[in-house]
Amino acid sequence: MTRVDQLRKNAFTSDGFDGYLLFNSYNMLYFLGVPGATALLIPPDGEAVVYVYGVNYEQAKAECKGFDVHLVRGDENLLTKIAIQAKTSRIRKLAVDNIGVKTWHTLTKELAPEIALEVNDVFVQALRAVKDPQELELMRKAAQITSVGVEAAAESIKSGVKECEVAGEIEYAMRRRGAGSTAFETIVASGVYSAFPHGGCSGREIREGDLVVVDIGATFNYYCSDMSRTFVVGKPSEKQQRIQAVVKAAQQKAFEVIKAGVPVAQVDAVARQVIASAGYGEFFVHRLGHGVGLEVHEPPYLNSASKDVLAAGNVVTVEPGIYIPGFGGVRIEDTVLVLEGGAEKLTVGPYNLSKK
Amino acid sequence: MTRVDQLRKNAFTSDGFDGYLLFNSYNMLYFLGVPGATALLIPPDGEAVVYVYGVNYEQAKAECKGFDVHLVRGDENLLTKIAIQAKTSRIRKLAVDNIGVKTWHTLTKELAPEIALEVNDVFVQALRAVKDPQELELMRKAAQITSVGVEAAAESIKSGVKECEVAGEIEYAMRRRGAGSTAFETIVASGVYSAFPHGGCSGREIREGDLVVVDIGATFNYYCSDMSRTFVVGKPSEKQQRIQAVVKAAQQKAFEVIKAGVPVAQVDAVARQVIASAGYGEFFVHRLGHGVGLEVHEPPYLNSASKDVLAAGNVVTVEPGIYIPGFGGVRIEDTVLVLEGGAEKLTVGPYNLSKK
Repeated sequence: MTRVDQLRKNAFTSDGFDGYLLFNSYNMLYFLGVPGATALLIPPDGEAVVYVYGVNYEQAKAECKGFDVHLVRGDENLLTKIAIQAKTSRIRKLAVDNIGVKTWHTLTKELAPEIALEVNDVFVQALRAVKDPQELELMRKAAQITSVGVEAAAESIKSGVKECEVAGEIEYAMRRRGAGSTAFETIVASGVYSAFPHGGCSGREIREGDLVVVDIGATFNYYCSDMSRTFVVGKPSEKQQRIQAVVKAAQQKAFEVIKAGVPVAQVDAVARQVIASAGYGEFFVHRLGHGVGLEVHEPPYLNSASKDVLAAGNVVTVEPGIYIPGFGGVRIEDTVLVLEGGAEKLTVGPYNLSKK
Repeated sequence: MTRVDQLRKNAFTSDGFDGYLLFNSYNMLYFLGVPGATALLIPPDGEAVVYVYGVNYEQAKAECKGFDVHLVRGDENLLTKIAIQAKTSRIRKLAVDNIGVKTWHTLTKELAPEIALEVNDVFVQALRAVKDPQELELMRKAAQITSVGVEAAAESIKSGVKECEVAGEIEYAMRRRGAGSTAFETIVASGVYSAFPHGGCSGREIREGDLVVVDIGATFNYYCSDMSRTFVVGKPSEKQQRIQAVVKAAQQKAFEVIKAGVPVAQVDAVARQVIASAGYGEFFVHRLGHGVGLEVHEPPYLNSASKDVLAAGNVVTVEPGIYIPGFGGVRIEDTVLVLEGGAEKLTVGPYNLSKK
């Protein structure tokens, strides 16, 4: 069954929709396999319609197999064009993934009175959250490439080297292994900056005694991966060793409870408990993890407030951290595949990372 | 005058607003200078309020000077928190940059009856479109780094090398010169793929006789640059030479008419006319260019339908192209600063690019 038919089966039978309109580029990429579309209209049956501007038209015609590719000329109104097509397809209740309020007002008017519009992306998100074998092959590859990036970090981090130079070596190594791009801005955060979870990377020179948080991701055929390791330059202090050990234990505990059917809040709680018991609870300032796929942050989110339950085929990060302002931080993260009876780490690499 | 005060001066006097609420990450970055905020509320006077989640709180406190940084806890409702603050600040008419329709409905309810909400980002966009001296310094640097990337492309493109390998050399060279990241996914599109304007880059081996479109951008301190050159591998054919010459002439003509006060549609028309006269009009399938700044695509857009007029301080791309399906494509692009009496290319590098 194609992904389009799967969406129809889920959304059109259970919730009364008979059409789906997508504007979100990742949602469209999920169905089309290639970027460049401006909108995607899925009617009750027949080919789905891809709307593209001239700049991407030839490529979309060549690559969007099984879709009806419509050119949008510069002087045409996209929303009017979509509304006419939706009426021709006899859609009565159209779901649309999230759109801006101005587009919403225009589009509801264009569609009235025949077609009711309703914001709904849960059926698409639900499909995207469970990876099929083809997606898993790409995500395994992205994870392998990302793991090579961490190896490059291990080789290049030393006293006197700049954060951004390390980032350059990481990205170059990932490219040489086939990365399409980085999944997000490479983080190499050293010294006191390691206490900022999103510390980015700067021209700062790494120094003896620094903690260095490396948080990186490669894409492969548009699928992301996400991995963090924290290095110590020189001989680790007792406190650095202790924090590393606590974060590692938190990740391991979380990893051990992950399997299909487990509430995400429980996984978050297990890791949080390890860190709190060690006296560092106030310094674990973010959720435990997030889903990964075409987007580097996507459902399911592993946080205490979520009601989501893990399903086999989810791919999520497990990334506890301790961040002590003025001292430094430690984060350890792997991208993990949820299985029926457990979990499998897609990213791989050592955890004990002292560097001369 | 700070950027916040500039916005107040423009939006609060001329359009009756007395508050501005920003959710767009680039709009917030413009005022804050650093990423990581979730929302930014600008009241009629006093410090603007930055909303951040725990993951970014310590960093925001350290880096958002002159702003009131509010922590949003995981169990708090962000929109409720903003509404209470807006009422405390006695805002009556609040502008918000574009938000999703669901957020819109929730927020209007939270703000009623005291505060009217209206979608409006024109004042922020207008400020962002005219670069101040501090921004121009960063954009010059981004352009220099990007130009170094094109030099790296010139060195690495040869028969037998893969597109993605060339991309790796380009990105590595830009990083070594201080790039923060790529401004967009690096394009190295060879052979028939050069006819796809957004051809990306693949594992394809570049071959003798190929046209190779290289379209790249580096960021520096979050500011983008954008530059394209098209290489020919080996001795160019007569047709390749002719297309290169036509595209180059179109870019030069456009460059010559750019100055403050000129309608963008006129600049687009001048370039389009050169290409049409040479018989390739149907193959120039995109607008002439776009604004560049914190985003790689932002206003003003250089297309035939726009009513915008160039202003001194705009930074725009000038990027005509000819794309012949099955044959190949040529695009030449520079990032250009609009001056009172002319224009200045920020990206620099040779145009005549045959490669052995």
